[in-house]
Amino acid sequence: MGLRPIDLLILFAVGAAGGLIGDAGAVQSGVTRYLDDSVPFVWESPIWFPVMVGGATVLIGAVRLALGPTRPGFDARIGVAAFASVVAVYSVTTVVGDDGTAAVALVVTLAVIAACFFADRPGWICGLAAAAIGPAVEIAIVELDLSEYTDPNDSLFGVGLWLPGLYVVFGAAAARITELLVARHET
Amino acid sequence: MGLRPIDLLILFAVGAAGGLIGDAGAVQSGVTRYLDDSVPFVWESPIWFPVMVGGATVLIGAVRLALGPTRPGFDARIGVAAFASVVAVYSVTTVVGDDGTAAVALVVTLAVIAACFFADRPGWICGLAAAAIGPAVEIAIVELDLSEYTDPNDSLFGVGLWLPGLYVVFGAAAARITELLVARHET
Amino acid sequence: MGLRPIDLLILFAVGAAGGLIGDAGAVQSGVTRYLDDSVPFVWESPIWFPVMVGGATVLIGAVRLALGPTRPGFDARIGVAAFASVVAVYSVTTVVGDDGTAAVALVVTLAVIAACFFADRPGWICGLAAAAIGPAVEIAIVELDLSEYTDPNDSLFGVGLWLPGLYVVFGAAAARITELLVARHET
Repeated sequence: MGLRPIDLLILFAVGAAGGLIGDAGAVQSGVTRYLDDSVPFVWESPIWFPVMVGGATVLIGAVRLALGPTRPGFDARIGVAAFASVVAVYSVTTVVGDDGTAAVALVVTLAVIAACFFADRPGWICGLAAAAIGPAVEIAIVELDLSEYTDPNDSLFGVGLWLPGLYVVFGAAAARITELLVARHET
Repeated sequence: MGLRPIDLLILFAVGAAGGLIGDAGAVQSGVTRYLDDSVPFVWESPIWFPVMVGGATVLIGAVRLALGPTRPGFDARIGVAAFASVVAVYSVTTVVGDDGTAAVALVVTLAVIAACFFADRPGWICGLAAAAIGPAVEIAIVELDLSEYTDPNDSLFGVGLWLPGLYVVFGAAAARITELLVARHET
Repeated sequence: MGLRPIDLLILFAVGAAGGLIGDAGAVQSGVTRYLDDSVPFVWESPIWFPVMVGGATVLIGAVRLALGPTRPGFDARIGVAAFASVVAVYSVTTVVGDDGTAAVALVVTLAVIAACFFADRPGWICGLAAAAIGPAVEIAIVELDLSEYTDPNDSLFGVGLWLPGLYVVFGAAAARITELLVARHET
């Protein structure tokens, strides 16, 4: 019942790692650009980026636990697939993403398919909440001139129109991994 | 047992919505072009396009019921994922589609993977029948000069060589959603 | 128990067919190029290419059997989906592949998702072994000036940086199909 310190560390590390991989692709392809280089960078990201994604992952885990009982049964492959799904959709946003209807529809539908597979009802709430809050935070970051999304990936108040889709799969996957961490203790 | 009027409406609406999303991407990217603007348009499509896709979805549902008993068990997530799979493959035809071997193989294999997941034997028949009839109807539409597929998406008698793949997942998904609508009444 | 001659033939044929489809896309798009045209070609590939892929598929099947008991239960759809998954990832390497982080991450994560779905523990070993040995063999082929990967798909000692990902899904799928062939005899 509940997450142990090691679980919080795992959630943080998994989130930070996924964020760094996805962001490296986005920065290399010019989808996003960091405008403030006064802080140390890890790979292609300023140090605060993996910290925020890792922290958000822990936060989603806590929200998932608060929303109701988690499903039993531990299978590492589900967790690995959930993590890989987020990085895959993140990579799709870079490789074929733009703010056109087809690219946005592709990102959103891939995220929805992943959420249908991984999420229970609380997991969907995590995904939808992340889709509402995450882009709002990123819009604030862009407004603060810390980073920018470049055209044609900036039509949702300065961030990619596909960004809520990416957060759906992020929220659903973080919730599912949280469930697995809890289940691991019970087996 | 069988579809009620509300189910027919749902099938029609789901098909029309998926068609409109997918077609908007195709038109915006120039994959397809409408040559007759004498009719009202909805988003990027002439009014007859969503009507045809919605009608085809209802027709597939009727065929699915005629082909044998449907599987029990209602899970909305399966229906959402089936709908999302069609829109995802539709978007892939726009985002990375052309008539080269790799793009055609990608569309067809994604459609086959989705059909393997969603379809029972009658569902496969729906998918394969759609793959035979759908492109034939679209070829006729192109011959009537109502619309065109642009190069390099026109090498199957004027339509995309990948188009049968898109119809496989369309048929399989429409059949699966039909099964779920029937199952919903039985639970 | 074990593979019959017909099973070896099926594994060989499935591997050769998948290889030919994937390679045709790669050659047509210029991802790979054959430098020695002194041998007969099948579609876009020299005759030794499908022979090697088919032989590798049989070899993976033998390794899978040696690694432990196979799972019971025959379902043709799983085998079809496994085959389609390899061709899909192969096509992705051609359609959106390059050696950038996003494309490599996409190929690797798609392969990992497929392996999570298809592979048991021995299947993962097959996938990881294929990911180690396959690219090494291809690097040797490139060194022998029989073929080349073109920029920007050549940064792993002359082959694509995403190539290990493709071999993961190849190994996992070949192992899964082997299991199904064994299970078919037992039902």
